[in-house]
Amino acid sequence: MNDSIQALTQRIVAFRDARDWKQFHSPKELSVAIAAEAGELLQHFVWQSTEQSVQRAIDRKQEIASEMADVAILLMELADVLNVPLGEAVADKLARNEERYPADKARGSNKKYNEL
Amino acid sequence: MNDSIQALTQRIVAFRDARDWKQFHSPKELSVAIAAEAGELLQHFVWQSTEQSVQRAIDRKQEIASEMADVAILLMELADVLNVPLGEAVADKLARNEERYPADKARGSNKKYNEL
Amino acid sequence: MNDSIQALTQRIVAFRDARDWKQFHSPKELSVAIAAEAGELLQHFVWQSTEQSVQRAIDRKQEIASEMADVAILLMELADVLNVPLGEAVADKLARNEERYPADKARGSNKKYNEL
Amino acid sequence: MNDSIQALTQRIVAFRDARDWKQFHSPKELSVAIAAEAGELLQHFVWQSTEQSVQRAIDRKQEIASEMADVAILLMELADVLNVPLGEAVADKLARNEERYPADKARGSNKKYNEL
Repeated sequence: MNDSIQALTQRIVAFRDARDWKQFHSPKELSVAIAAEAGELLQHFVWQSTEQSVQRAIDRKQEIASEMADVAILLMELADVLNVPLGEAVADKLARNEERYPADKARGSNKKYNEL
Repeated sequence: MNDSIQALTQRIVAFRDARDWKQFHSPKELSVAIAAEAGELLQHFVWQSTEQSVQRAIDRKQEIASEMADVAILLMELADVLNVPLGEAVADKLARNEERYPADKARGSNKKYNEL
Repeated sequence: MNDSIQALTQRIVAFRDARDWKQFHSPKELSVAIAAEAGELLQHFVWQSTEQSVQRAIDRKQEIASEMADVAILLMELADVLNVPLGEAVADKLARNEERYPADKARGSNKKYNEL
Repeated sequence: MNDSIQALTQRIVAFRDARDWKQFHSPKELSVAIAAEAGELLQHFVWQSTEQSVQRAIDRKQEIASEMADVAILLMELADVLNVPLGEAVADKLARNEERYPADKARGSNKKYNEL
């Protein structure tokens, strides 16, 4: 399967346009939907210990993958609406994080870059 | 640039492992981080009308792209941790949505599939 | 009914302690649960226009009130755990917002205080 | 200080009306704002262990109390807009949770009621 973000985005946009849904999918509405779907993903792990969350992720893999797909689809659609090449945005952010979190300083630490 | 999810995921995992961060990145913690970043994305559009959100998305494109990249990076890392092929999960969800939202029934409607 | 935050908090803490749940309810876990419940509340309004959301809030009043109660309960419990007098925190924030958003400057505007 | 929800709500509504903000504060918009503020609260605890979160909550008490106040203010305003008596909704939910989570069955367990 071609899992390039560009190819997936084309399928997502075709799906949306076949339903004439662009009118509902403003940047704001897409961001609202992303937050709501991220909340559904989070719901799986409320009150769980780290160990329990690992087991739950195995037991509920299909459901969790489906929530993740929802977030991914909305994110790719938002990127398309905003003319943001999402793959490049990811690469840019990784480059910025390389600077913010130098490997030798950040190794084994869960501190934020401005607290390192 | 190769924007396949698989290629991007390799870069993300390499970044994480160079910092020995896997210990902090359980499925639960990644889901918490995704929700927090989705909240930052949403923050841009609070109280805005649809029209204002379109303009804001143009004015703050770099910042917004950066929040989107954060969500995308965490999502690809979570998919890797859970052994979920994210591109396939997206394709599966689109197929399921094709059934839930038949184009002729869903056209121009913002109703949920169970209310169509 | 006595709807003081203090009185409600006593009932919430008694409920929690009768179940020996304090061990699970760290500040982090309570914040995770609040975000997840806020996501459920948001879910009701995804893709809805403002007008539709007004109607939906009427049609689903019980369900929505139940989501709101979840957020409120968790918030009061978090305040108790952190020794934050929530009523005072609300009063303090309103006082701060009086300064940030002077009525004559903020009237009819949906701008953030740092953009007024 | 009178920390009844009703008294606090009166102050919140007076603040809003002095700024003519009701036009922006539909049920949907208030729910969006609640989710965004819950995200800010969550942001404090991302990647933190339970123990770290306890310490952070002490170190950042003022900031965290301020985020909590934001959520509380918006929630009380939403309750007012929807004509939901929030104190009663909390009491109702506690009563429902008494049934869902009988103390002898739920003691020391972090399972959901439908998994108990």
